Formats: sequence, C-alpha cells, structure tokens
Amino acid sequence: MVESVESVEIFGVAGIPEIRAGDALGRMISEACEAQGSALKAGDILVVTQKIVSKSEGRLVELSSVSPSEFALSFAARSGRDPRLVELVLRESKAIVRMDADRGVIISETHHGFVCANAGIDQSNVPANVPGEDVACLLPKDSDASARRISDEIRGLTGLDVPVIVSDTFGRAWREGHVNFAIGVAGMDPMADYRGTPDAQGREMHVTTIAVADELAAAAELVQFKAIGVPVSVIRGYPYRAGVGGCGALARERQRDMFR
Amino acid sequence: MVESVESVEIFGVAGIPEIRAGDALGRMISEACEAQGSALKAGDILVVTQKIVSKSEGRLVELSSVSPSEFALSFAARSGRDPRLVELVLRESKAIVRMDADRGVIISETHHGFVCANAGIDQSNVPANVPGEDVACLLPKDSDASARRISDEIRGLTGLDVPVIVSDTFGRAWREGHVNFAIGVAGMDPMADYRGTPDAQGREMHVTTIAVADELAAAAELVQFKAIGVPVSVIRGYPYRAGVGGCGALARERQRDMFR
Repeated sequence: MVESVESVEIFGVAGIPEIRAGDALGRMISEACEAQGSALKAGDILVVTQKIVSKSEGRLVELSSVSPSEFALSFAARSGRDPRLVELVLRESKAIVRMDADRGVIISETHHGFVCANAGIDQSNVPANVPGEDVACLLPKDSDASARRISDEIRGLTGLDVPVIVSDTFGRAWREGHVNFAIGVAGMDPMADYRGTPDAQGREMHVTTIAVADELAAAAELVQFKAIGVPVSVIRGYPYRAGVGGCGALARERQRDMFR
Repeated sequence: MVESVESVEIFGVAGIPEIRAGDALGRMISEACEAQGSALKAGDILVVTQKIVSKSEGRLVELSSVSPSEFALSFAARSGRDPRLVELVLRESKAIVRMDADRGVIISETHHGFVCANAGIDQSNVPANVPGEDVACLLPKDSDASARRISDEIRGLTGLDVPVIVSDTFGRAWREGHVNFAIGVAGMDPMADYRGTPDAQGREMHVTTIAVADELAAAAELVQFKAIGVPVSVIRGYPYRAGVGGCGALARERQRDMFR
C-alpha cells in the first residue's frame, strides 16, 4: 500500500459456503474474513452481493409453484420467455417501465422503487433443492433492512460499526454492459454532497451529489469474479460519512424522473 | 495490503499543477506519481478526469465569444439559463434526448454518442484567463484518442503499458446522484464478458457483460474529492484484459436503446 497518499483498498472475501435460508450472514462473513487473515477493522465497509442476501432470507422460488396470469402467459408466448418467470417479474413490480416482447425485455420499477430488468429476479448461481427443478432468486424484500441486519450482527459479534451495502448488477439506459450498484445501505450516508463547497477556483459548485454507495458497489465488483465464489468485498480506507443509510436517497422518485 | 486474497488498491495522484493547453499530461502524471513515492508499475491502470484532459487540449471556451442561435436564446429565456452556454450545449450535441425549460435541463447525445446532461459541458474548476470572464469546459473531441495519447506518452517515457481511462461524472436515469463513468479508454478491454462461462452451479450465465471501465472510473472517484486537486487515480492490482480500448463498446447505439 502506498502510504503517503489517500488510498483505498478493496479485497474479496472467499470461503463463504453455499448460503441457505436462515443463515447468519453477518457471522459467516466476519468469520470468513478472519479465516483468510483479513479480520474486519474499524473503517471497513462491506459490500455484499444481493444473491447471498436473498438466499439467506429464503427468497428462492421454485417455478413449478408459480401459476402465471393471463397477462404473463400472453407476454411469455410473444417473447418466448418462461411464463412462470414473467409472472414473478410482474408480482415483484410496482409498475412496468418498458415491456418489449420482440426483445424479451421487461424493465420495471420494483416495490423498493428501483428501475431494473426483470425486477431484479435472476436464475444464475441458484442451486435447485430438487435436481432439475427450476428456481428463481428474488431481491430481498427490504434490502436496507437486510443491510442493517448484517451490520447489527457484526456489531454484536465484534463491537465494530461496519457499514454494509447490498449490491446488485444493473443495466443502464444509454450505456452497454452492467455495473454493480447499491440496493441496500446501512451505517453510512449513501451520498456525498459537494454542493455548496467551493471548487479549486473558489467558484461554488452547483450540482455534485455523488452516489458514493453506487461507486462503492461498483468498486466492489472489481474483486468479485461472478463465477468463482467471492460474494462479499471489503473496502478499506474510504472516509465514509456515518449515518443511518437507506437507499431511498438513491432511487429517484417518479415525479423527478424524465425517463419513465 | 492483505496479501492472501485478491486485492485492488486505488490511490490518488496529487501535485499536478493547473493544466494549460498543450501540456504533456502523460509526463506530468508520471512525474507526479514518482514525486509522491508511488511510481507507476506494470499492471497499473490510470483514471484521468475529463477536466484536465480537456484543459490540456484547449477545450475551454470564453462565453463572450459565443453567439447564441435563436433556438438557444428561446430556450435560455424560458429556462433562465445563460444563452451562450445553451448554444455550446447544442453545438456539442448530435441529438437532444430531453429538453425541459421548467427544470432547466438539457439531456443530449454528444457527438461521441454519450447521453448526458449539457453535453458534458461544465464550468466548475475552470479558471478564467481574463478575471471575471466566464469560461466553459467542453469534453475532449475524441476522448479515446486522448486516452491513447496519455498512454503512449507514458510508454515512451517509462516503457510501461499503462491502460488509461478518461472519466466524467454522469447522472443516471432512475437513480439520484452522480457517478464517474468512462468516456475514453486505451490499452484495455472496457468490458468483461462473463457470458457463456458456467456459474458456480455449472449453469451457463446468460447476460453478464460487465462494463469494467465504468466500474474502474467509479472506483477512481473514491480517492478524488472534487475540490481538492486530485484529478488522477491509479488502480493497482486489477487483472484487466489488455486491448485496444475504445468507448464505442460502452455507448449504446440508438437502435438498441429503449430510452431515447
């Protein structure tokens, strides 16, 4: 580590076993950090991928248990998608933002207020309980509460206040590729507000609220290579502003949005 | 640094003087790294903020030199914005995506193909040549070429192949706050393609192309506090895939976009 300058370190947490409903994620993460010789320290931030949070909260659904509505059946027939999956996307959505059968795309607003493809539901890295059974993974019901629970658990075990960000992979309007953003935040301010601070020329800066929780989530992905079991990152050295957290500040309200 | 695990380090490069047109950015960055005891090494990635790149390329415009068109005057009158600035935004745009006089907002597609507010033009941290004169900073004309030039210059001086990302602060549809994304890339593949690789359950992953250049740009911001003169970050330890670069892969084509 370069000592003389502002520096942030990101490392992955490996060795976390396959997560089951009811697992104590906070404890498992804390132990996995210790086991790899990088015990959590004051000032660390944890970024936890949504998938293991959802699994620990029992948010897996066997598709055979889902009865698709007429609307889901109709869209599925036109788009070539699984009607049971379409049904789950509709159930997890507050509103549809774009629905395009030709592309097989549903972009919707989730009950949390996030706009994303398929209401965040996905099927990768989801083991079937019954071999051959198709399973889908839903987003946590309240991802801020999930983040808080993990942070609280770690405080109980270690005495450390470690902010927790629950991350998920998002597509974006106008840009190709996916990036990790935050869907749950506890223990830190998700935004850094540069408004009103003078710039290097003493000119007051007008619009610079940085979504640091999203930048931290994006940074965390750099040490998580999807397929090889690194579902958690530690970010060390970022001078976050402590706070309650909450992703309400990150999800733009419909009235303020020009693109839905 | 934790040695036993995958780890990425990010640090800021301070001590870069106010940039003027014609300045050799690659040399100045390389020297500033050495001066702070963190000389560039093989495997490093440089993330350079757009502002200093634009300054080195003489992309500052004195507003007094700009004659607004009728259209710019009309929008400026309805939105309360400076008509000369509106004129510049129009000139730097290939198409307008949203224009809302009540909110004073112009979201447009730049000639490079990026969709952003005000065609990326901004006025913070831009010193006037003549005191009191208003100056605006335009995006680099060809930000991939800018990245390449810096990377080439560093190779010439040090023999190192250091990928360079030119970054800018972007707003997003649906989400509050700004994040840093890439507008120019040289020396590395801006995308990491996880499609076709099996996940931990051996299931083939369908859609996971990660815009790593955007994640690296976002991560770089974590050590750049806008107002205090850290316009460059070094990212050390990220296993990038070497390549020509180019942001063409990041800017979604109009035909593939559902939001313009």
